[in-house]
Amino acid sequence: MPEIPVHRRATPADALDAIAGRIARTPVMTSTTLNRLTGLDLVFKCEQLQKTGSFKFRGASYAVSRLPHDCPGVATHSSGNHGAALAAAAALRGFSADVVMPENAVEAKIEAVRAYGGRVHLCKPTQADRENGLNELIERGLAAIPPYDHDDIIAGQGTVAVELLAQRPDLDCLVAPIGGGGLLAGMTLAVGQHRPGLRVIGAEPSGADDAARSRTAGRRVAEHHPETLADGLRALIGVRNFAIIQANDIPILTVTEQQIIDAMALVWRHLKQLVEPSGAVPLAAVLAHPESFRGVCTGIVLSGGNLDIRQLLSSLEPSG
Amino acid sequence: MPEIPVHRRATPADALDAIAGRIARTPVMTSTTLNRLTGLDLVFKCEQLQKTGSFKFRGASYAVSRLPHDCPGVATHSSGNHGAALAAAAALRGFSADVVMPENAVEAKIEAVRAYGGRVHLCKPTQADRENGLNELIERGLAAIPPYDHDDIIAGQGTVAVELLAQRPDLDCLVAPIGGGGLLAGMTLAVGQHRPGLRVIGAEPSGADDAARSRTAGRRVAEHHPETLADGLRALIGVRNFAIIQANDIPILTVTEQQIIDAMALVWRHLKQLVEPSGAVPLAAVLAHPESFRGVCTGIVLSGGNLDIRQLLSSLEPSG
Repeated sequence: MPEIPVHRRATPADALDAIAGRIARTPVMTSTTLNRLTGLDLVFKCEQLQKTGSFKFRGASYAVSRLPHDCPGVATHSSGNHGAALAAAAALRGFSADVVMPENAVEAKIEAVRAYGGRVHLCKPTQADRENGLNELIERGLAAIPPYDHDDIIAGQGTVAVELLAQRPDLDCLVAPIGGGGLLAGMTLAVGQHRPGLRVIGAEPSGADDAARSRTAGRRVAEHHPETLADGLRALIGVRNFAIIQANDIPILTVTEQQIIDAMALVWRHLKQLVEPSGAVPLAAVLAHPESFRGVCTGIVLSGGNLDIRQLLSSLEPSG
Repeated sequence: MPEIPVHRRATPADALDAIAGRIARTPVMTSTTLNRLTGLDLVFKCEQLQKTGSFKFRGASYAVSRLPHDCPGVATHSSGNHGAALAAAAALRGFSADVVMPENAVEAKIEAVRAYGGRVHLCKPTQADRENGLNELIERGLAAIPPYDHDDIIAGQGTVAVELLAQRPDLDCLVAPIGGGGLLAGMTLAVGQHRPGLRVIGAEPSGADDAARSRTAGRRVAEHHPETLADGLRALIGVRNFAIIQANDIPILTVTEQQIIDAMALVWRHLKQLVEPSGAVPLAAVLAHPESFRGVCTGIVLSGGNLDIRQLLSSLEPSG
């Protein structure tokens, strides 16, 4: 009788082995001035400098690397960054990419998906409409690569932590944003494998606090009406993602819209890094609870930098 | 008879030896997407990541390092970045810093000078008023560290090129912005010492084209009424600076305000680096003359990243 292969879930370290040649090993940055102003010891992992401008290229690259050569194309739903990342990763293997996007997605993100060769399908901005749109594409035979509720995606996003822990072995704590939970769940798995006991903390907008409510309830909530500037964090936490976060007792901090804007301004001013609102949420959470991070070397993931540049430029007017 | 010491002008390499422990060795960045879009091979030297947010910290650090211990304090005039850099460099040696600034300087730059401990003296935005203001401070006994027309400043700014040529020995050409000319003159000296024959090119706004007009005239023009968004490049080219640029036959390219804004948007979008308008002028010049840079590995200095963040944030409005 032939041996039955045992399915083993890929780890973030496995994923990094598979994609290291394709992704950017993003740098870490620190700011003396920001540390002095906050009285903290902050280390920033720069995923805005990842290819396609967010960590999403990690998971997408890993998931695409596992597809068979005769795959008829990939499909997903995304508020933007996963869609662009998947389109770019698929193009590298010669696959088409179809992306369902909410019609209130950031215009620049819709353009980015198209720029990487993806086909965009706009839908109403609800979780149900996003999932229905994706189901239609799957029925046409395309391979679904969901944005976060998927083992390969979780393992791929977790490579952020594998890299960061190698770059800065002195970190005491990691803080990451949570939307669907791919990044936070992947980082949780990576820490469990490489640095068990290291603190991992999630951060989300109070206007999209499904992860915090789920943790309080002890089960994944389904009710979710996100309202936040942090467009990358509007998705509902995934089933696999919640299970990992719950099992590892990962705390979730929530922040207001003003705290997000203030944190984003600090990153722009002191690091000169153009992060998007979602990317500033972990710093906002740390600054909202400074007493919890005093004397602790804190690793903060700047998750992405895809902003509407035209909108930003509109504030600049030539002066004499 | 004692030997008479021969005065030798310090080179950028001397300056780098003196300040290497104090300044940031800034990284270089590239963007596959930007190279694909432009059809060029562009390498960016990230001086927006220098301490105080611009290359000016190099020259200021070197000039301050040469002052005697009993110096009663330093003074300068500046549109902002040199003032902040000098205040920070002076504070590291325990010296006071007095900075004459035009009243139309970027508000964030005035605040930055104060944040680094400098005293700000606002004046009318003319070259004469800036110089008169500085003269009053010199008469009070303070040591003048002018922003660009000074051998130590020129040598200090030239360290950008010494570093960049070591980081990327494959560069065929360097492009830097020119305001007063400290950076371009210093880079010209560095190239002359380390890579004679390498092309060096200056870039300035057509609304502040004193360097281009001076090169055409073959003598330093005095007539100058700058009108440009690139606030860091409004100063009149210095005497020493023009002499070096003229002697080395450095070409000066000019760009429109729209070309500056477009180049800045490209840097924000593809490098995620928050550069100020002045910092985007060299890229604007390269993109305005792509035929001159085709097939050439071009090093572009992103000179600074000090923008008014509050003004930028004003364009973002929370959405649902």
